[in-house]
Amino acid sequence: MSMKPTTQIICGIDPGLRATGYGVVRVDDDDDSVVVVDAGVIRASPEGPLSQRLAELAQGIDEVFDEHRVEIVAVEQIYSHYQRPRTAILMAHARGVILLEAARRNAQVVHLPSTTVKRHLTGNGRASKEQMQRAVTSLLRLSRVPEPPDVADALAIAVCAVNVLRQPARPALGNDDLLIH
Amino acid sequence: MSMKPTTQIICGIDPGLRATGYGVVRVDDDDDSVVVVDAGVIRASPEGPLSQRLAELAQGIDEVFDEHRVEIVAVEQIYSHYQRPRTAILMAHARGVILLEAARRNAQVVHLPSTTVKRHLTGNGRASKEQMQRAVTSLLRLSRVPEPPDVADALAIAVCAVNVLRQPARPALGNDDLLIH
Repeated sequence: MSMKPTTQIICGIDPGLRATGYGVVRVDDDDDSVVVVDAGVIRASPEGPLSQRLAELAQGIDEVFDEHRVEIVAVEQIYSHYQRPRTAILMAHARGVILLEAARRNAQVVHLPSTTVKRHLTGNGRASKEQMQRAVTSLLRLSRVPEPPDVADALAIAVCAVNVLRQPARPALGNDDLLIH
Repeated sequence: MSMKPTTQIICGIDPGLRATGYGVVRVDDDDDSVVVVDAGVIRASPEGPLSQRLAELAQGIDEVFDEHRVEIVAVEQIYSHYQRPRTAILMAHARGVILLEAARRNAQVVHLPSTTVKRHLTGNGRASKEQMQRAVTSLLRLSRVPEPPDVADALAIAVCAVNVLRQPARPALGNDDLLIH
């Protein structure tokens, strides 16, 4: 008889300074089910200074991690060839805060390229926001489409992480020196 | 008789994921003196995952802020036209963590363009690392050149912040929506 726990709590996060989407799912290894436990958006005062907005984000993330005892945190990688480097740099500030809070809880961190998440859920690495929302709604058997799209993206990241972590021979996803290709 | 404290503790920080330079100075308004209280480098395990390195950085920054009761934190801005966007994005992760720890202590945050710091100390917005090291050594009357250059840069940021904050009509440096131009 195994005493190994058969459920895991995974939080997918779509980081942003204005709105950070999060989606918490519970995975049951016994019946392969993936259930949405919580999902939403953390908003920071758009008028506040950057340091204050990061503190608000950290507080919101802390509450989600604590409430659901999150064990695995999945975030998208940031690419350096973004068309808008200013957005990428601001997002990286938010991402730094999220990774810090994950590390402080000894949560496992999974970094996923956005194209992997999109391809995983829709078969298309360049899927639109609407396609992603539809795929998440269908896969997780939700009664309605997650809004705003940040929430759907966060749930998509969580679902993708679940499946990647289930693969017996999984790639070195814990190694986030692969952060930016 | 004024009860206003006449000293301030300012910490300049040169953020990086491998090495973050810091320089703590004490400013005495009575005699206009600027004295170096502490300076050094916080190093994170180069082999560790990003989240772990950010946690190590946060711990190091916390220790400096706590030990010296830092009231003002000065950091360089990050520019989106960096030649190496990967470096800028990684630095932004570290910068996010530093700003978070500053906000959690209610420290005032001052963002300074690197060209402003260089021009302020040397008269040349494109000064070399060696020129900056010499200027910091001379201005702060140090017995030797700060090494590595990250420490000199951090002290330079602190000195520049002192002088910018002394200006009667100072620009809106608290507004870090000016983060990236």
